[in-house]
Amino acid sequence: MTQMDKPALIAQLSAIVGDKAVFTDEDDMAPFLVERRGLYVGRAAALVKPATTLEVSAIMALAYENDTIVVPQGGNTGLVGGQIPDTSGKAIILNLSRMNQVRDVDTNNNTLSVDAGVTLAAAQEVAQKANRLFPLSLASEGSCQIGGNLSTNAGGIAVLHYGNARDLVLGLEVVLADGRIWEGMRGLRKDNTGYDLKQLFMGSEGTLGIITGAVLKLFPAPKSRATAFVSLSDPVDAVTLLRSIEDECGGAITSFELMPRIGIEMVTAHVADTHDPLEVPSPWYVLVELSSGTARDDLTSQLENALADAMEKDLVSDAVLAQSQTQAAALWKLREAMSDAQRHEGGSIKHDVSVPVSKVPKFIERALAAVHADLPGIRPVPFGHLGDGNIHFNLSQPVTMETSAFLDQWAHFNKIVHTIALELGGSISAEHGIGQLKRDEMAALKSDVEIELMRSLKRTLDPKGILNPQKVISV
Amino acid sequence: MTQMDKPALIAQLSAIVGDKAVFTDEDDMAPFLVERRGLYVGRAAALVKPATTLEVSAIMALAYENDTIVVPQGGNTGLVGGQIPDTSGKAIILNLSRMNQVRDVDTNNNTLSVDAGVTLAAAQEVAQKANRLFPLSLASEGSCQIGGNLSTNAGGIAVLHYGNARDLVLGLEVVLADGRIWEGMRGLRKDNTGYDLKQLFMGSEGTLGIITGAVLKLFPAPKSRATAFVSLSDPVDAVTLLRSIEDECGGAITSFELMPRIGIEMVTAHVADTHDPLEVPSPWYVLVELSSGTARDDLTSQLENALADAMEKDLVSDAVLAQSQTQAAALWKLREAMSDAQRHEGGSIKHDVSVPVSKVPKFIERALAAVHADLPGIRPVPFGHLGDGNIHFNLSQPVTMETSAFLDQWAHFNKIVHTIALELGGSISAEHGIGQLKRDEMAALKSDVEIELMRSLKRTLDPKGILNPQKVISV
Repeated sequence: MTQMDKPALIAQLSAIVGDKAVFTDEDDMAPFLVERRGLYVGRAAALVKPATTLEVSAIMALAYENDTIVVPQGGNTGLVGGQIPDTSGKAIILNLSRMNQVRDVDTNNNTLSVDAGVTLAAAQEVAQKANRLFPLSLASEGSCQIGGNLSTNAGGIAVLHYGNARDLVLGLEVVLADGRIWEGMRGLRKDNTGYDLKQLFMGSEGTLGIITGAVLKLFPAPKSRATAFVSLSDPVDAVTLLRSIEDECGGAITSFELMPRIGIEMVTAHVADTHDPLEVPSPWYVLVELSSGTARDDLTSQLENALADAMEKDLVSDAVLAQSQTQAAALWKLREAMSDAQRHEGGSIKHDVSVPVSKVPKFIERALAAVHADLPGIRPVPFGHLGDGNIHFNLSQPVTMETSAFLDQWAHFNKIVHTIALELGGSISAEHGIGQLKRDEMAALKSDVEIELMRSLKRTLDPKGILNPQKVISV
Repeated sequence: MTQMDKPALIAQLSAIVGDKAVFTDEDDMAPFLVERRGLYVGRAAALVKPATTLEVSAIMALAYENDTIVVPQGGNTGLVGGQIPDTSGKAIILNLSRMNQVRDVDTNNNTLSVDAGVTLAAAQEVAQKANRLFPLSLASEGSCQIGGNLSTNAGGIAVLHYGNARDLVLGLEVVLADGRIWEGMRGLRKDNTGYDLKQLFMGSEGTLGIITGAVLKLFPAPKSRATAFVSLSDPVDAVTLLRSIEDECGGAITSFELMPRIGIEMVTAHVADTHDPLEVPSPWYVLVELSSGTARDDLTSQLENALADAMEKDLVSDAVLAQSQTQAAALWKLREAMSDAQRHEGGSIKHDVSVPVSKVPKFIERALAAVHADLPGIRPVPFGHLGDGNIHFNLSQPVTMETSAFLDQWAHFNKIVHTIALELGGSISAEHGIGQLKRDEMAALKSDVEIELMRSLKRTLDPKGILNPQKVISV
């Protein structure tokens, strides 16, 4: 089958979704062709915005027939270029934002069924109005979409307790490469009838199929919460503290975030309405949050007791417990602003690694030594989800260095940091995925067996290679 | 490639695992060739018991080279014939029970790494000794093995809180059809580097690869527990009670099991040391258990309050709270003995269906009406994991009917019950899998797209069709 010429393709797309949902003007398409940090800029033959699963199906059937490359896109918040086409101008961007209907809320089944284009914040809100919690929570929740969250197996700040996006799904609806619809919108907690096909499509970044709908798990809404900001001398003590609070408070820990002194200094220096909550500076901090679905648990006193024990054992040097929601929000702001605050300190080289939680202290120790030895004056800001073993080992440039000269070393520092993570049984992409950014690096470090398995899956599900090609894995 | 003759095959297998780990004598093989209820009896060329992953790898390489069928087997406790070969006598049974080493316990990572042949009970015990919980729990836990649990995505009594077996796994080691080893023994809570290959092998019943090792999640050990046995008038009230206890007690509910009056009567009539815990008979009962990883939560008073509220609202007619572990065990025995007790009442036709939790009352109502209309005198005993929507809709024969005449209607009643479950968005195999028992039925009721996707996965991962063929899906 030869490729259709562009006007014929546009005409066919318009016949499927209507004129107003097909865009070919460069200005119209521009916001959808650039990743928000500007790292990836692509081109496209058209941007198409279907409103229904049947429209997505018809678009894929057309694309399959004509060997047209399709790049699925949600809220365009991904950090690895998965949602941006290449620069050939041949791809069509299939943006799901018009598929934004809530299909069903079933409080007796604790499920929420949505179109893929519903934003994460909208899904959270629907859950909240039904006196339930949809626990996925991450920085871009106002604009990212459920389809993108699931396609990238998003992580965020509640993984410790609720798991990754993958763990929050009971059913999926997926349009396959050739336009067939796999109808898997089941709301079942147990279903062992054959291979669990939905798992294929989660975390595969739109390279095996296009998620158009999902049945999500809901949880009891939290009714009590306790938040503390704790200072301690090193990450070893932070891991011991995590397990000792767990021993005291059971599964109530919903967040356990590690921060270094330099991160707090950057935030309080550059971000409005932030201040250091503890008097005496400390090399490391932890933000810990407990929550419970019952109002009867006295989480604050549980956490107080656990922290008092930890202070007696010299695990913790100081701590403040939030006395109100406002105080808790102020503590969280220190953590949430940490990535942005680094923008004010020149170039920043990012990492999104994970290691077993037990190996986090060793990872941080080795990675700090390695980057300091490599570039004196470098300012590492390792912070993040210690409870999941997921550390954003970000590196701010030396104060006096030229930013571009520092950023030129991106791959160099990636290699240093990733090598150490891998030696400790870790991952080079804990929650952001592979996309374009880490495709070749992943291919180089995975075993041949693993890469061959991935390639064979890609070939099986996308034989013509039209679904988000050259993302995650090249065939 | 032609098939080796049998003596040559045996010699090669012996060269891999040693003479003492290859069995060809019919008497030696007999216990491994029959499913415990006697529904499936197979034959085999040999039974081989490798002790290491490398031995499994060498066996599969040999089998691949010689087109030899391999049936992987764990504790031989499966209920759908997945672990039993056909009657051709050509297969080799690859039994994993000698691979029973605990590889690692990492309490700071909350992980347990084991060989596939470790029994579930042994894994639970290792966790307990480390002051942790491995929450998978089911009737055959003394003999079933982790490899089988994961290959079948086992369910059990704690799914409501902890999820199915699939949800309890961080990493896998798998031997592929051609003998290559996929090394995925990662202990990471977050890892988004490419397709999540481990998901392929869980729940696929040994048809896509042989699981030889796993990294399992551990949880804080429960420190407090509350157990109640509650009488109520119908399943609608049971679902309302579930959500109202959840509203009061949050995520602390770890079990919520439904039982009918007839089930309690059968248990107390036939099982030693059981008695009806409530004075006034009631059409339905629920066993509810809360548990918490902290000793500070007063779960008993929380549950008492929730039940008092429910009584005021006329959801519940009576209730007893266990005052000791002994009392709790006695209440659990009523539930756990329910399947066995039916053996004393003649033939029993089993179902393992699930529907959305919200649909359980409608399912029970419709299925009861349908089977009563079909066969007056039939004695349905619908019981099970209401909190997961998983009801074992078992049917005891009419008292006066001949057992064999009743059991001849197995497929007939399956059809009646499964049709209703499917109409309500349910599954015909909630936790037991497909194996041989439900293969053709599954193929008939799934969509063409779904069956084709499953077949294409099977062909991709097992191109020669030597891995547990004719189980789950025929290609």
